[in-house]
Amino acid sequence: MKTYTKIGKLKSALGEVRSKGRSVGFVPTMGFLHGGHLSLVKASLKNTDCTVVSLFVNPTQFGPQEDFDEYPRDFIRDSWLLEELGVDFLFSPDPDEMYPQDYKTYVEVKDLQDVLEGRSRPGHFRGVCTIVLKLFNIVCPDVAFFGQKDAQQAIILQRMVNDLNLGIQIEVLPTVREEDGLALSSRNVYLDPQQRQAALCLSKSLDEAGRMILGGERRAGSILDRMEKIIKGENLAKLDYIAIVDPVSLEPLAEIKQDALIALAVFIGKVRLIDNRMVSPKE
Amino acid sequence: MKTYTKIGKLKSALGEVRSKGRSVGFVPTMGFLHGGHLSLVKASLKNTDCTVVSLFVNPTQFGPQEDFDEYPRDFIRDSWLLEELGVDFLFSPDPDEMYPQDYKTYVEVKDLQDVLEGRSRPGHFRGVCTIVLKLFNIVCPDVAFFGQKDAQQAIILQRMVNDLNLGIQIEVLPTVREEDGLALSSRNVYLDPQQRQAALCLSKSLDEAGRMILGGERRAGSILDRMEKIIKGENLAKLDYIAIVDPVSLEPLAEIKQDALIALAVFIGKVRLIDNRMVSPKE
Repeated sequence: MKTYTKIGKLKSALGEVRSKGRSVGFVPTMGFLHGGHLSLVKASLKNTDCTVVSLFVNPTQFGPQEDFDEYPRDFIRDSWLLEELGVDFLFSPDPDEMYPQDYKTYVEVKDLQDVLEGRSRPGHFRGVCTIVLKLFNIVCPDVAFFGQKDAQQAIILQRMVNDLNLGIQIEVLPTVREEDGLALSSRNVYLDPQQRQAALCLSKSLDEAGRMILGGERRAGSILDRMEKIIKGENLAKLDYIAIVDPVSLEPLAEIKQDALIALAVFIGKVRLIDNRMVSPKE
Repeated sequence: MKTYTKIGKLKSALGEVRSKGRSVGFVPTMGFLHGGHLSLVKASLKNTDCTVVSLFVNPTQFGPQEDFDEYPRDFIRDSWLLEELGVDFLFSPDPDEMYPQDYKTYVEVKDLQDVLEGRSRPGHFRGVCTIVLKLFNIVCPDVAFFGQKDAQQAIILQRMVNDLNLGIQIEVLPTVREEDGLALSSRNVYLDPQQRQAALCLSKSLDEAGRMILGGERRAGSILDRMEKIIKGENLAKLDYIAIVDPVSLEPLAEIKQDALIALAVFIGKVRLIDNRMVSPKE
């Protein structure tokens, strides 16, 4: 595995790869890798000729009150994990390399960026879209891999790719979970044992929604009520939002007639966790 | 010359060009071509292997009160002119091809977009950046050509290209003028003979600024005063803005110590004209 910190050097290395007609797969990450990230890396290794992984904790997607400084980092472990898997290129730039002084350009996906996570985290998706577009322009991948755990992110990035005519294939892979159902997240490391247990309310409430739909329930209101009860039944949990939305427009659904996305965010102490599930009335 | 109206078809034609190792030059235009556009096309023909010209009157860069509907169009004449010059590909999409229903993605270059033209035309540069980024992603040019007449546009697009790591060379070519100094513009066609004469106040005031600087004047205030007097001396003219700014940051300069951009916009009747001049104390 070759590690690059400079845009120019990575670009020329990738130029050579491309000149040999080899396809490029890309997995952008903020590091502190877990099984979710690794499943994306494995998919890229399997489906493309050359896999690039970026490790970059992107300042522009954190709000001023958020956990940018405390976001967990472990470059040596991440690097070792990626090398073991057989990744070709690791890109790990300094913030100054990505956002030089007087940086001024930002990308927005209107409407989609303002709901769910975007309502709780103003400016978050503007930061995400901007850094991902920059990374796409640097790496020029044929395929880029994202996790279903960040469902809204994947939906917004797919829209950005279509709207800006980027011609990059976006692959969204299933959320990877612990045995007991907790979705893997770099932020899980913040949870103490009691909180770790409490955090199960997210996946439990989503499982319950799945069971209700399987049992014939189609009214979003009833499902959301039951889910809220599960979250509120957990003392250490505080609901941020919960919603059943159309998976393309992200507009709220009153009734589940076709595929729907159920998404929620819950604070466990100071730790903000998200989870989601795609459901279908045919389930 | 091959003409394309569909993104996919142009992309595959350009894929073949690129696979043969040929360089691609690109001239984005809104059509109704004049000598300014044609100088860009000639530069591309001379310096690259394959020249692509786009004709697209971009709705997102016009304000609701502006002249989108009345903007002059003459596809047949434009097409003929480009064919004569030896252009390889003409891209002339419908608005629906560029902005399908539910289009949501926009690019902004903060600060630079809010001054001069941006102050008079809110949203204008957001529209320009968005369409140019889309066209860049479709054409993937090695070099793109723009006119100095739209100085702020060139400065903003250069910043966008740098910030988004696009790796496209931006060439800015001198403003082409009529014999008497009037900068060529598609909007000149709106001017009646009296207005045509009055429109000379733009270039005259810029010439006077040049003379003052040559004579040793360095105070922006004195230069702007003299220019304003020239504009106000013309009955049919109404000054929109006039400014002497740093050509990178676009911040106003009090004194001309290094290269400076003098830019102005003037209404002649209902027709809004712009012009500018780069000046240097070493002139």
